[in-house]
Amino acid sequence: MKKYVYMFREGNETMRALLGGKGANLAAMVNLNLPVPQGFTVTTEACNEYYADGKIINDEIKRQIDVCLSELEKVTDKTLGGKENPLLVSVRSGAKFSMPGMMDTILNLGLNDETVEVMANKTNNIRFAYDSYRRFIQMYSDVACGVDKELFEEVLTELKEKNGYESDLDITAADFKDHVIPEYKAIFKARLGRDFPQDPKQQLMGAILAVFSSWMNERAVVYRNLNNIPHDLGTAVNVQEMVFGNMGDSSGTGVLFTRNAATGENHIYGEYLINAQGEDVVAGIRTPLKIDRLAEDMPHIYDQLIQIVKGLELHYRDMQDCEFTVEEGKLYILQTRNGKRTGHAALKIAVDLVHEGLINKPTALTRVEPDQISQLLHPNFTKAALDQGEVMLSGLPASPGAASGKVYLTADKAVECAEKGEKVILVRHETSPEDIKGMDACLGILTSTGGMTSHAAVVARGMGRACVVGAKGLSINYKEKTFTIAGTTYPEGTEISIDGTTGNVYAGALAVEEQELTGDFAELMSWADEIKTLGVRANADTPKDADTAIKFGAEGIGLCRTEHMFFEGDRIEYVRQMILSDTLEERELALEELYKFQIEDFKGIYRAMVGLPVTVRLLDPPLHEFLPHTDEEYQVVAAKLGKTLAEVKVKGDSLHEANPMLGHRGCRLAVTYPEIYNMQVRAIINAAIDVQNELGCNIVPEIMIPLVGQESEIVYVKGNITKAIELELAKRSTKLEYKIGTMIEIPRAALTADSIAKHAEFFSFGTNDLTQMTYGFSRDDIGSFLPDYKEKKLVQVDPFVSLDQSGVGQLVQIASTKGREVKPNLKLGICGEHGGDPESIKFCHNVGLNYVSCSPYRVLVARLAAAQAAAEQILVAHSTEDILVKDK
Amino acid sequence: MKKYVYMFREGNETMRALLGGKGANLAAMVNLNLPVPQGFTVTTEACNEYYADGKIINDEIKRQIDVCLSELEKVTDKTLGGKENPLLVSVRSGAKFSMPGMMDTILNLGLNDETVEVMANKTNNIRFAYDSYRRFIQMYSDVACGVDKELFEEVLTELKEKNGYESDLDITAADFKDHVIPEYKAIFKARLGRDFPQDPKQQLMGAILAVFSSWMNERAVVYRNLNNIPHDLGTAVNVQEMVFGNMGDSSGTGVLFTRNAATGENHIYGEYLINAQGEDVVAGIRTPLKIDRLAEDMPHIYDQLIQIVKGLELHYRDMQDCEFTVEEGKLYILQTRNGKRTGHAALKIAVDLVHEGLINKPTALTRVEPDQISQLLHPNFTKAALDQGEVMLSGLPASPGAASGKVYLTADKAVECAEKGEKVILVRHETSPEDIKGMDACLGILTSTGGMTSHAAVVARGMGRACVVGAKGLSINYKEKTFTIAGTTYPEGTEISIDGTTGNVYAGALAVEEQELTGDFAELMSWADEIKTLGVRANADTPKDADTAIKFGAEGIGLCRTEHMFFEGDRIEYVRQMILSDTLEERELALEELYKFQIEDFKGIYRAMVGLPVTVRLLDPPLHEFLPHTDEEYQVVAAKLGKTLAEVKVKGDSLHEANPMLGHRGCRLAVTYPEIYNMQVRAIINAAIDVQNELGCNIVPEIMIPLVGQESEIVYVKGNITKAIELELAKRSTKLEYKIGTMIEIPRAALTADSIAKHAEFFSFGTNDLTQMTYGFSRDDIGSFLPDYKEKKLVQVDPFVSLDQSGVGQLVQIASTKGREVKPNLKLGICGEHGGDPESIKFCHNVGLNYVSCSPYRVLVARLAAAQAAAEQILVAHSTEDILVKDK
Repeated sequence: MKKYVYMFREGNETMRALLGGKGANLAAMVNLNLPVPQGFTVTTEACNEYYADGKIINDEIKRQIDVCLSELEKVTDKTLGGKENPLLVSVRSGAKFSMPGMMDTILNLGLNDETVEVMANKTNNIRFAYDSYRRFIQMYSDVACGVDKELFEEVLTELKEKNGYESDLDITAADFKDHVIPEYKAIFKARLGRDFPQDPKQQLMGAILAVFSSWMNERAVVYRNLNNIPHDLGTAVNVQEMVFGNMGDSSGTGVLFTRNAATGENHIYGEYLINAQGEDVVAGIRTPLKIDRLAEDMPHIYDQLIQIVKGLELHYRDMQDCEFTVEEGKLYILQTRNGKRTGHAALKIAVDLVHEGLINKPTALTRVEPDQISQLLHPNFTKAALDQGEVMLSGLPASPGAASGKVYLTADKAVECAEKGEKVILVRHETSPEDIKGMDACLGILTSTGGMTSHAAVVARGMGRACVVGAKGLSINYKEKTFTIAGTTYPEGTEISIDGTTGNVYAGALAVEEQELTGDFAELMSWADEIKTLGVRANADTPKDADTAIKFGAEGIGLCRTEHMFFEGDRIEYVRQMILSDTLEERELALEELYKFQIEDFKGIYRAMVGLPVTVRLLDPPLHEFLPHTDEEYQVVAAKLGKTLAEVKVKGDSLHEANPMLGHRGCRLAVTYPEIYNMQVRAIINAAIDVQNELGCNIVPEIMIPLVGQESEIVYVKGNITKAIELELAKRSTKLEYKIGTMIEIPRAALTADSIAKHAEFFSFGTNDLTQMTYGFSRDDIGSFLPDYKEKKLVQVDPFVSLDQSGVGQLVQIASTKGREVKPNLKLGICGEHGGDPESIKFCHNVGLNYVSCSPYRVLVARLAAAQAAAEQILVAHSTEDILVKDK
Repeated sequence: MKKYVYMFREGNETMRALLGGKGANLAAMVNLNLPVPQGFTVTTEACNEYYADGKIINDEIKRQIDVCLSELEKVTDKTLGGKENPLLVSVRSGAKFSMPGMMDTILNLGLNDETVEVMANKTNNIRFAYDSYRRFIQMYSDVACGVDKELFEEVLTELKEKNGYESDLDITAADFKDHVIPEYKAIFKARLGRDFPQDPKQQLMGAILAVFSSWMNERAVVYRNLNNIPHDLGTAVNVQEMVFGNMGDSSGTGVLFTRNAATGENHIYGEYLINAQGEDVVAGIRTPLKIDRLAEDMPHIYDQLIQIVKGLELHYRDMQDCEFTVEEGKLYILQTRNGKRTGHAALKIAVDLVHEGLINKPTALTRVEPDQISQLLHPNFTKAALDQGEVMLSGLPASPGAASGKVYLTADKAVECAEKGEKVILVRHETSPEDIKGMDACLGILTSTGGMTSHAAVVARGMGRACVVGAKGLSINYKEKTFTIAGTTYPEGTEISIDGTTGNVYAGALAVEEQELTGDFAELMSWADEIKTLGVRANADTPKDADTAIKFGAEGIGLCRTEHMFFEGDRIEYVRQMILSDTLEERELALEELYKFQIEDFKGIYRAMVGLPVTVRLLDPPLHEFLPHTDEEYQVVAAKLGKTLAEVKVKGDSLHEANPMLGHRGCRLAVTYPEIYNMQVRAIINAAIDVQNELGCNIVPEIMIPLVGQESEIVYVKGNITKAIELELAKRSTKLEYKIGTMIEIPRAALTADSIAKHAEFFSFGTNDLTQMTYGFSRDDIGSFLPDYKEKKLVQVDPFVSLDQSGVGQLVQIASTKGREVKPNLKLGICGEHGGDPESIKFCHNVGLNYVSCSPYRVLVARLAAAQAAAEQILVAHSTEDILVKDK
């Protein structure tokens, strides 16, 4: 028979999945002989059975609960509902990962009309007993039965008002017994149509049921969705003997952190209350005392407590968050866990613990969440500014950072005002590729529509701009040049502030503070670079991007998207001439003009990278992305080409496609129009030669062919561009090393990677497209069904955010294996959005890729994630005490 | 050193790849001790070396040619260019597969100004010698040097006119020597700027070069592309001692088939000419005699010939196509090969050879090309009608068969006139799903745009309608109800005839003949059914389709696309109400109406199939495919829903997608709107119960969920529909066996088939979508680049026509293996267009699928192809004499 219930002493700290984090820690503390109240844990498996059985706790589980309850009664020499020595227990939820939103705690369970009297007699403290009882009724009704706790609070408030009491402490035992408790019971009955349960075993089963059922309450589900925690883990339930901090002035209760959770400083940090139960500390009804006061109030207890919690920190080798209670001069540790902390604190604690010799560097690297690095990177509003700020509006936090400036409603106006030195916030319904320059010129972007993978969101993250999208209360009148929020209309030029980390939009300009990348941060990153084996490159399309990438420690450019340069300035007109040409000759004229721009673009990038590798992807998107939108724009092209408006419009229309994502793009364009890639490689090669001569460093351009799906494509395109390159080198009588490789972004390319590898010097996994085609999901259309999938729990993570390891990852694995079978030294990288996602980066490390490439602003995150992947391998390989259970 | 040149005696009939078909047959005949002129073969590998070396024949190959030439001189006791006994040879191309478009033959090579005199003296026939010489100059100039042969023919024509000659036979030796040959040489020199080569070795190398280079000439490349023959096979060259049929009346030459190549009847069939060379027989200059006359002219030779060719037929166990020459009373066999034949002949010969005990049934099955079956199925124009018919226009032959009727330009008009009993040809720019009813009502479809996979083409093949698409010379004026071809405008109602097998469009009504499916055909198909292990089902959406499927021997329905029923009649309005609803309640009202139609549809299909399995696919396409097109149509829906026009249009617009193929469709619809599939399964189940009761047969509906890509999808959707089904069965207090399975058409589904198989009773590979996503090719957009791919030889076969075995096939293999690992009895089928393609069917057999499903009109083809796949395995397993090299 499966074991569903464990006494604390039967568990240990490795059993987190089964006993939950809290249960495993309680077991660990018991095993460390700490003064922990006794109890038992109902397992997460029992929770899953409960759901499998249609929300019923089956007989076997009930039987095991009874067995453990009997043992607890024996150990404590108390009896649940006993008339002589009644056992009171707390009931707490405890999942594998700590999780707000679930039922937290019920205290004093076991009290009823009889046992409350016994307790009163035993403790010689009638007030304490009845106060406990009323607390229990209130808590049980609220968390286990869903009765609004405000109803109970009102009773107390009225009572205090009526009697002129200043605080709860003024309430007398008689008040509780004769007035409060009868009223509480009446509320319970009125709301639920039954009497408050008097049978303690019934109370216990009700509480356990409530914990199980809280696993699926809405807030818990939302939290798990947001934090990528699977829904099938289940929660455990901890049933523990009560101890009482409210048994007079020699009793008390508190919580403490062994280090400062906000700053990471190494000093005990916590609060406590004399003569109180735990909930009083967090509920904010009474103002708790700083933990230091305990040294004065109860010096002996304080010393014991400090010794224990420092011992726990030493044991867990991490900052601890402990709950304790003093019952009539005796200290109990109720709970300990690795403490939650800010990014700053995580960083400082990890570095300090290394310096203190408690953990090694690989362990330290695993102690900082890569995503917390974002907090350390982006400018933030000062705390003072936030405290005073007025939230006008909220949207989705699409790209972190804080920005204040004047609102402009078009990209052109944004550029114009930014050039005049103004701080600009670009505000649009949504953005499109033509807004790029405006997005670059501004400090922050705010849109009224779109989601986390909308154009604005993706580009802003790439550029490191603060961005809030989908701010529903915002409407824009482009004609009148105004925007309206909550009925108030503002003109262009109005100052606002946006917080891309929270999604909040504030009125006026809030003070911003920049972050420094020095000290502990620099030290941790130096350890990261020592340990990581996966290279980190950046996706950078402009010299400016390249500078940013270098600043954050990128080791090269993994993806330079040439088409992003096509929208800038006048060149879009030549692009349009090129695509609306009817003949090779017309097309070559336009391409010659574009060549002049492209060679300068590449020179700028090479100069910024000073010899670091640069991978340039040849033209990828379908041509119609560059088409004119208005008749005026068409007319400009028509004039240049010497054609009629009608002629160029017909040509333009003919380029529209039913499914452009699966259409005439990537290397397919180069099969039809080889002259486009030939122009691009000429620019790449000549720019490299020029900058090589200029800087005296060695430049090895890496030329990447997009959208290859068949061996014949790479053979054909590589043949053409190689000819064009060799011709160019011959013309200049010079030699230059260069590499030609391909994106692997078509499932077929991954499946036939062995034949493609014969012709490629490197593969770069384009996991955005690979995800689209492997799932058959269009990124542009996924918004119409992904919310339903999330709501109905069909997906846990958006596969465009974190790489789908079992499907898309399988193709990455297949292609890596097949490619290296043919060419053992084949260089493998990834350049989709996943290149900046920590989980995906770990996958890339494990598959054996050579590098990831991500947006410049994700480079630090990627460096840390890459180091963590390496660290985890080292820690697993050296299965010593250094390997500690990592708390989420 | 590699052997590049083989004497005939060194080869054998299994060496077709290396020696070409002709070379291998010559070797075989030599080994059979037949009277074959001696010679040698330059291998296909030498041809590939020639291309690899930049179109140069390297020294080693030249050396080996010299060695074999010496041996040939020794064997024949003649010398190339010799003054005493000059060797003359023929030079012929010979690839692995017989291939028109390549250089065919050069005869009499070795003649020059000197050897012609020796020949004249030796044969005592000056005229013969000089006639041979002038033929050689003409042929060499034409086929090896590209000089137009008309130039040479003109010389003869002028000569005959000038001298009043009636035929070539009147030309004298002196004419040839003094007039014709000098003029021929002058033409050569004028055209090529050099003298006609006098060195026979130079002639020989020139001829071999010409053969090699003809491998890549345009006609040959086009032929290979059309016939899916790889371009890297290369051609061999056969050099063979000349024998002369033109050495007087005891000489002659001819070709014969051992059976009738048009009808398959078992009688010798051929032609010959006395005192002539082979080219005279085929060139049509002299009218050849029927082979029977040879029995009178040369009875001894005739008997020997018949004995030999019947022996050859026995040896090869197939109908032979032989060339022979009689040189001064001695018979030589120049060549034999399996004869090309019509579909009718292929069928009759295969069946007869089994009856004659020459081949076994598996071999017979491999002797009929599955695509030839099409010829036997579809109505054809009579030969007489075609001879007289006037071709107005040509397009792509999209769906075979012949149809005559009156042109109508809209689907509605086509339906209306067909109902009046007229024969209708539907003529449109292109067709769309709304034209389905019109396409069904007509006999043939003609479109001015679109390719072989356009809507018109796919649907017409599915319906078995004759169809010609992409007829460029056609323009249509829908307003005026006219169409224009070559400047002439015709009104609706004009009679035309279209031939879907050739793509020709004729003026007026041509006579059509229907085909019978009895006799030899029925016998062969019965053998096919005995041997095949792969099931053959049909894709059928209506009771009418189901009837057709049964007629052609389908064993069930593998794909019933419920959405095809959605366009019929009034129901499109309910569909539109459903998709434009805002609330569940509105949607359920419309679904309830659709339910009434769907249950009748399913009943009709079950009745037609009488208990055979029927796989119904739940709704698949994106909803916007059903949207209204005009404001009027929107208004109708608005009125029904009680909304404004603007409201329903906003809703309609919101359904448009950037990449609908990758959008909100398939089971993704059922995640958002579970009520749609619930309605459909209710109809499926209730129809099955009703028809089961009605017919007393057992019906087991197979319900197929489309577009599953993740385990969670099938779990969710299956859970919902199972609940709906069980509720329905409970309501009717009845039991019904049913199966739930899924399409595998998303790459991710194939890659994770193990987890999906846990929840599926069958997989059906939707290889249309699977091909789209595996290649990243949109079928709707492929027309913009596939022609370039074909022209530049980047693809050999359209992957939507024949399954891409190395890429898409790999996914089919992966999914099959993973699925069966989890569920060994998992039923596997395929229901894409590939289910009717013979090569793809063989792949399906080899992968171990249970069945293919194809359009009803492809069922016979599929049955034969499935049988061939099984037959080929049997023949390989029993490596006996029955296994004969199959000639293409």
